[in-house]
Amino acid sequence: MTVEQNNKQKFLEEIEPGDEFSGFLAIRRKDIKEWDGKFRLELELGDRSMSLPAVIWDDVEKWENDLEVGDVLKVQGVLTTYRGSVQFKLKEFEKTDGSVWNPELFIPVTEKDRRQLIRDIREVIDSLTDEYLCELLNLFFRDTEFLARFGTAPGGKAWHHVYIGGLLEHTVGVLRLCKAAAEGRKDINHDLLYTAAILHDVGKIDEYEITTNIDFSDEGRLIGHLIQGDRMIRDMTGKIKGFPERINMLLSHLILSHQGHKEYGSPVVPMIAEGIILYYADEMDSKLNAFKRIKGKKSNIGSTWSEYVKLMERFFYLDNKDDSEH
Amino acid sequence: MTVEQNNKQKFLEEIEPGDEFSGFLAIRRKDIKEWDGKFRLELELGDRSMSLPAVIWDDVEKWENDLEVGDVLKVQGVLTTYRGSVQFKLKEFEKTDGSVWNPELFIPVTEKDRRQLIRDIREVIDSLTDEYLCELLNLFFRDTEFLARFGTAPGGKAWHHVYIGGLLEHTVGVLRLCKAAAEGRKDINHDLLYTAAILHDVGKIDEYEITTNIDFSDEGRLIGHLIQGDRMIRDMTGKIKGFPERINMLLSHLILSHQGHKEYGSPVVPMIAEGIILYYADEMDSKLNAFKRIKGKKSNIGSTWSEYVKLMERFFYLDNKDDSEH
Amino acid sequence: MTVEQNNKQKFLEEIEPGDEFSGFLAIRRKDIKEWDGKFRLELELGDRSMSLPAVIWDDVEKWENDLEVGDVLKVQGVLTTYRGSVQFKLKEFEKTDGSVWNPELFIPVTEKDRRQLIRDIREVIDSLTDEYLCELLNLFFRDTEFLARFGTAPGGKAWHHVYIGGLLEHTVGVLRLCKAAAEGRKDINHDLLYTAAILHDVGKIDEYEITTNIDFSDEGRLIGHLIQGDRMIRDMTGKIKGFPERINMLLSHLILSHQGHKEYGSPVVPMIAEGIILYYADEMDSKLNAFKRIKGKKSNIGSTWSEYVKLMERFFYLDNKDDSEH
Amino acid sequence: MTVEQNNKQKFLEEIEPGDEFSGFLAIRRKDIKEWDGKFRLELELGDRSMSLPAVIWDDVEKWENDLEVGDVLKVQGVLTTYRGSVQFKLKEFEKTDGSVWNPELFIPVTEKDRRQLIRDIREVIDSLTDEYLCELLNLFFRDTEFLARFGTAPGGKAWHHVYIGGLLEHTVGVLRLCKAAAEGRKDINHDLLYTAAILHDVGKIDEYEITTNIDFSDEGRLIGHLIQGDRMIRDMTGKIKGFPERINMLLSHLILSHQGHKEYGSPVVPMIAEGIILYYADEMDSKLNAFKRIKGKKSNIGSTWSEYVKLMERFFYLDNKDDSEH
Amino acid sequence: MTVEQNNKQKFLEEIEPGDEFSGFLAIRRKDIKEWDGKFRLELELGDRSMSLPAVIWDDVEKWENDLEVGDVLKVQGVLTTYRGSVQFKLKEFEKTDGSVWNPELFIPVTEKDRRQLIRDIREVIDSLTDEYLCELLNLFFRDTEFLARFGTAPGGKAWHHVYIGGLLEHTVGVLRLCKAAAEGRKDINHDLLYTAAILHDVGKIDEYEITTNIDFSDEGRLIGHLIQGDRMIRDMTGKIKGFPERINMLLSHLILSHQGHKEYGSPVVPMIAEGIILYYADEMDSKLNAFKRIKGKKSNIGSTWSEYVKLMERFFYLDNKDDSEH
Amino acid sequence: MTVEQNNKQKFLEEIEPGDEFSGFLAIRRKDIKEWDGKFRLELELGDRSMSLPAVIWDDVEKWENDLEVGDVLKVQGVLTTYRGSVQFKLKEFEKTDGSVWNPELFIPVTEKDRRQLIRDIREVIDSLTDEYLCELLNLFFRDTEFLARFGTAPGGKAWHHVYIGGLLEHTVGVLRLCKAAAEGRKDINHDLLYTAAILHDVGKIDEYEITTNIDFSDEGRLIGHLIQGDRMIRDMTGKIKGFPERINMLLSHLILSHQGHKEYGSPVVPMIAEGIILYYADEMDSKLNAFKRIKGKKSNIGSTWSEYVKLMERFFYLDNKDDSEH
Repeated sequence: MTVEQNNKQKFLEEIEPGDEFSGFLAIRRKDIKEWDGKFRLELELGDRSMSLPAVIWDDVEKWENDLEVGDVLKVQGVLTTYRGSVQFKLKEFEKTDGSVWNPELFIPVTEKDRRQLIRDIREVIDSLTDEYLCELLNLFFRDTEFLARFGTAPGGKAWHHVYIGGLLEHTVGVLRLCKAAAEGRKDINHDLLYTAAILHDVGKIDEYEITTNIDFSDEGRLIGHLIQGDRMIRDMTGKIKGFPERINMLLSHLILSHQGHKEYGSPVVPMIAEGIILYYADEMDSKLNAFKRIKGKKSNIGSTWSEYVKLMERFFYLDNKDDSEH
Repeated sequence: MTVEQNNKQKFLEEIEPGDEFSGFLAIRRKDIKEWDGKFRLELELGDRSMSLPAVIWDDVEKWENDLEVGDVLKVQGVLTTYRGSVQFKLKEFEKTDGSVWNPELFIPVTEKDRRQLIRDIREVIDSLTDEYLCELLNLFFRDTEFLARFGTAPGGKAWHHVYIGGLLEHTVGVLRLCKAAAEGRKDINHDLLYTAAILHDVGKIDEYEITTNIDFSDEGRLIGHLIQGDRMIRDMTGKIKGFPERINMLLSHLILSHQGHKEYGSPVVPMIAEGIILYYADEMDSKLNAFKRIKGKKSNIGSTWSEYVKLMERFFYLDNKDDSEH
Repeated sequence: MTVEQNNKQKFLEEIEPGDEFSGFLAIRRKDIKEWDGKFRLELELGDRSMSLPAVIWDDVEKWENDLEVGDVLKVQGVLTTYRGSVQFKLKEFEKTDGSVWNPELFIPVTEKDRRQLIRDIREVIDSLTDEYLCELLNLFFRDTEFLARFGTAPGGKAWHHVYIGGLLEHTVGVLRLCKAAAEGRKDINHDLLYTAAILHDVGKIDEYEITTNIDFSDEGRLIGHLIQGDRMIRDMTGKIKGFPERINMLLSHLILSHQGHKEYGSPVVPMIAEGIILYYADEMDSKLNAFKRIKGKKSNIGSTWSEYVKLMERFFYLDNKDDSEH
Repeated sequence: MTVEQNNKQKFLEEIEPGDEFSGFLAIRRKDIKEWDGKFRLELELGDRSMSLPAVIWDDVEKWENDLEVGDVLKVQGVLTTYRGSVQFKLKEFEKTDGSVWNPELFIPVTEKDRRQLIRDIREVIDSLTDEYLCELLNLFFRDTEFLARFGTAPGGKAWHHVYIGGLLEHTVGVLRLCKAAAEGRKDINHDLLYTAAILHDVGKIDEYEITTNIDFSDEGRLIGHLIQGDRMIRDMTGKIKGFPERINMLLSHLILSHQGHKEYGSPVVPMIAEGIILYYADEMDSKLNAFKRIKGKKSNIGSTWSEYVKLMERFFYLDNKDDSEH
Repeated sequence: MTVEQNNKQKFLEEIEPGDEFSGFLAIRRKDIKEWDGKFRLELELGDRSMSLPAVIWDDVEKWENDLEVGDVLKVQGVLTTYRGSVQFKLKEFEKTDGSVWNPELFIPVTEKDRRQLIRDIREVIDSLTDEYLCELLNLFFRDTEFLARFGTAPGGKAWHHVYIGGLLEHTVGVLRLCKAAAEGRKDINHDLLYTAAILHDVGKIDEYEITTNIDFSDEGRLIGHLIQGDRMIRDMTGKIKGFPERINMLLSHLILSHQGHKEYGSPVVPMIAEGIILYYADEMDSKLNAFKRIKGKKSNIGSTWSEYVKLMERFFYLDNKDDSEH
Repeated sequence: MTVEQNNKQKFLEEIEPGDEFSGFLAIRRKDIKEWDGKFRLELELGDRSMSLPAVIWDDVEKWENDLEVGDVLKVQGVLTTYRGSVQFKLKEFEKTDGSVWNPELFIPVTEKDRRQLIRDIREVIDSLTDEYLCELLNLFFRDTEFLARFGTAPGGKAWHHVYIGGLLEHTVGVLRLCKAAAEGRKDINHDLLYTAAILHDVGKIDEYEITTNIDFSDEGRLIGHLIQGDRMIRDMTGKIKGFPERINMLLSHLILSHQGHKEYGSPVVPMIAEGIILYYADEMDSKLNAFKRIKGKKSNIGSTWSEYVKLMERFFYLDNKDDSEH
């Protein structure tokens, strides 16, 4: 059975008390508890839809040592209610390793069609007239392994595009805004801008690690996706004979400056028009996605106002229910 | 002879030493000087292309009292050189008032076709499905007097779109970006966003005064174009029977929050998705125009790097000469 | 029986275990709990003095749907103790609407005499020599409905004057400081300053909603009391024939700039001397009231130092017990 | 002849071309110039009203060594015009030292009656009920030497109260505002507040040096008037037997915290109500004085708007000409 | 029995369930609880190694009034387990006062040899050539009472050197860095710099109070250790005949400016080279100690990354386990 | 004749009016002037000691086209005085290119012995026990071409170490401080720290261009020396077989984070103890050098106080004349 087949399973939010369930669940929390001298292991098991409590009563000491938060169990069991709350009653389970399950079981996935998004990028690549930039992009986007990683990576860990495929979705969003901004402007190097838009966050495939959740890699925290991305690109341009040094420098400048301000982590600020466009396009697309994420949070659904959003120091007004009425 | 006819004249930068010149020139500077007991009035006279020194030798006392910086003279004279520098030698002149000349003689004008820009806006107005917003916009854009003022106003005094027609050009630029950003997004109220984009800076027609240069009006400094614009719009919505209060409130919110941050002068920050789009679209369009202005400054032409741009705390890299070569 | 009569009731902090209680209580919290298959509704009921737990054992499903946090119940019951903690035992209750109870049952009220505060304002109005400003103020302060709202509104939601009548108390406090500051200064427009002081926060009557607590209205968050107040005032000056445009502009400027800094929400900063006075008077009065509120918090009573006050990034020293001794 | 008598002389702005002048003038600028092998010393000589150019033609080398900017000359001469500009023609002059002239010849002086200001302070001192604070203040204000220095010191070098007597005028201004703010508040230690108000800037008598202009002393820059003032006060309280340590500490706290914020130079921020009042009273009085200074600047007289005021990042609106008209 | 002898006791982390324990324990928390009409007092008792729950069942009312958090009990008892958690079972206890126990039982102590640290300081003192500074330092460091306080004081309450002896350890650390920085620099006043390094935080002996934990004194919060230290030093220099005023001023400047920036609490910023050195040496030593503290926190041990460190707005990378391996 | 020989020439400040001079001088300014119809070219010619005016009277048009600011002339001439000011009278001159002169003629040079500085670095390299880091450093410091560039590069353009050899001097300064800070600390990776200290600014050899002055290269401005240095180092570690990836990552982290804060241009902040040391060592050494530069400025010599230093927002106190006296 392939990994793909392994991963056809129902989501927890789809099953009801009394239903049997068989599949992979991740350990989200682990506690050792004691009552009258007897110990038990209380777990929280989850997939990407929700989490449920479950208890291991036997061989507690062994399992306490063997299991860690983040491990994935292959389980068989049934959904029950106990004193008013729903639990997952384990019948059988075994610990598995990452080779047999798919992170998409545990992490949300973009709602967009990822194949179409890749096609959108390829279409722009094909439209470029600069042969060097075109070759550079093709070195990336004709490499299957790269495509797999680029199509899986998230756009962030907690703020925007925090799901599998988020990087790809965000990249196309930024690219689209850059095209609109550049349209009709003769003083813009279109090919350079679009190349930078496509590659601006490419370092995120190394900045994050996805297992049963999204987290920073050590290098992601210590170096950051701007530098990581710039290195990938320079490794690639180094392979292209005659790649113009000036374009190489400007492309680096765009990658490094796209956070727009030093305090946001760009070692240099945008000093060319293409950099201005890229920065604002990036900001707009990521903020809009963050807004959408906030609006969709369970705690906000049905409210006129969102909870306080610390990162943007404001509440958001969510109530557009009668937009269609007036 | 109409004002229009009055204002067909050559620009100073088009004439050469020895040429006769007849037309309107603005007083840019005025100094009283003395030599061996004799006084003279040294002026700097200019149109929008450049300024030149000129001297009044007779009736000095009278003219010193009569003439102020900002006054416009109807002059006849000739371009001469004196000790290596070019001067304008006055033969005849008389002071005029604002009824006979056109500010466009003294202030730069957008290079865009303003009629087309108005058509671009009207096209969007016609595409709206919300009848109230449509009516609101038509109350503005079918009013000839408003159109005259809106088409003449600048986008700013010193930073971006600092020319006649700048407001109109900027408005269309922002509108275009908003449309690109909103395209395909179902959670956006398109009509509301486009209305706000079209009217976001409408207060600038009162914030600035244009005579022989662009300056703030008293109210512009003491109140500011956000509030000025919001007032105009509310005066208008008050005339539309049944205009929905909630849309009125959200439109106000968009106008008031479009500077994006309190420290930039918005009394409230954007709390709806449309506000996020409008803010970044506004920033992008104005920054790109400022970049263009800087690139075109005489002191920067031919340089690889711009002078230091204090407002953005950086130098700009101007040298894209071989963009077309590689 | 009138609303007033309805609202003669003891406060919870005045009654003891064993006492009967009859009156209006607000629902401050609501939880559904289950034990051995039986559900109960746990409420927290309160007036402005304190809150107590209470339980509904019957028709739980019905009441869970019918009751929301913020609803007001007309209750009859008795104070009991259960396992060491005090509870309110419900005998009878019915849900009521806002027409029969007074918010003052649930929200604290200024300790000052509100009639006297109104007289203080009227006295200043009567002392003005500018007939237009005098008429403007009378249009507000001779309108009974306005007076009712102005006398009830709070000065804030959480920081200063957070009680019914707080706006009125704060207004008089600011007015008094402005008078002291302006006294003897000939370069100050006294009438303008006092008018602005009286009206500076008038928008707060729309910014907040008071029910069983104080909260922002939607418009309060999206527009803010500076603009809301400015609109009220301009609506009024529009009704006064011949109201001087320059004074209208300066009054607007004072209202809009009274937060003193853009980052505090003023779209323009004070540019006239009257604005400097108003800003500091407002700051001083509100900070002193906040200090008093902090000092009076239950958690701070008896302490030498307050808890950490985040908004002002400091602890406050509260121990002035021997001020009278030395 | 006493210093006082020495210093009865006309101000430069009062004399006309052709008039003789005899008195003390300060050297504001000094330049050595050469023409055709001959050297001359060009000076700018001034009193507090204005400055004029003057030339020394003889013994140039000697005078170049002997005279420095800031020196005061006792001069006899006549006002002349030369090539259109007014000069002072020196007939006789000698260099003097500080014992024979009065700084008030060269530095502006408060327009207020300083004796009355001292009386205002003394009146408050006499009204205090706290015997220790009363004694403390009397130790200062019954000391003739202290009074002379306190009555002469400026309130600042360039921003507010930049004249002789400025400290005294400012102190009374702050005291008056503190009294208004404290009036009727029972939770305020009035005696402590008024003592702090009177002494809050006492360190400025050491922070500045006044000669022919106002400048910082070395200690003023390296230590600052907060610490300097606190030291003076503690030296004094150390002389008062039984001075309560707690009041000593709170008084120090008020002196040290009166700039209100660490970034303004207060090592601690106000943590008691009296500190809040003192800070805002100080801010209001100094800002109003700065406003007045700006309004009175020659370059601003007659303008609707002031020049840009960098320290407050704004223009000021100066045009209240028709305040009395409407 | 002396205090020293009293304080030979095991630490809680060294004893096991079943062990008897006799010694001093501090009350870290106190709660009154009720069950079935019977009240009990739940305490948390601790030494510097850890805390444990304990219960008082008898005379509850009396003890509730008598005992406060921070009190120290002399206890006899035994370590037991109850329902899976460890408790301390009290057999006998009595309340004690601060004269019989040593704060080192309750607060961590530097791991460095404090006698050696004092010797390090004395060695530098002996090496100075400036007799006045030498005498000043000796007045401090030959005073036994001062030495006892200086050797006991902490370097801080929560951030760096938060243990007994921390001030001493930090002082030597800063001194060592200053010496390295000054080495070979002729434009540095070495004696002045080393004196300032030794005394820079001397005010902390008054800023903090140590009992069973470290806390700010009232004066510490209201005045702060910069001013407190400066006062101590000036009191001392006042006792030294002929102490040069200029050095006194510069030493004050160094003490007052050593936080480096106004927003960090220095009323003046460093304006001499010695101040630059002192500031950075202080920053480096305290930040390194804070890093070490964070690394040693129980919650961080074994982790690659620290918890988020708010004060420095970052995570720290802790994993240098294989530094020796590569 | 070699470049070295070419460049033995006197400095302008060493010659007197009447002296002949022969050597290279750089054009610091160029103006075309006209008098009575005749044009002349006014130049300012200088070496690193000073600049002097000089005039070209013949072939003005040709030279105006041929000569640019920054060009170097080989001149013969004589120092003269004209109307009281000193001029350089050109007898013969020819334009030269960069191959025949040495930048040290025109740019100041470190006063330190650069060979000794290199030896200091090599000594540390030889002391490392980590073979990989040792090899890395040797790849740089045994490469003659690198040594030539590293020994010539400045530490900055305008703020600190703004002279030839400045980078080298600064590197050794930082290294020395790092060694002092790390001494005796077991939790520090000494080899990693010293390697980072030696290489922390290596990117500056590409960031600046030195010709007749110090300026940024295009890449220096667009990319910056942090990234430039990181690239050089990674190119080198890529050549070392088996270079440990973790050390590579941490070294990059140290290079990229050594500005200490994002707003200073570091894309990541220091997250390891070595980074804290490196940052403060860098700050201390550069600020001390800037202080020294300011103290040595001609306009400050002899003054008690420096001019206002904008970058550090303060005046510096320069007067340590009697440090040795007291």
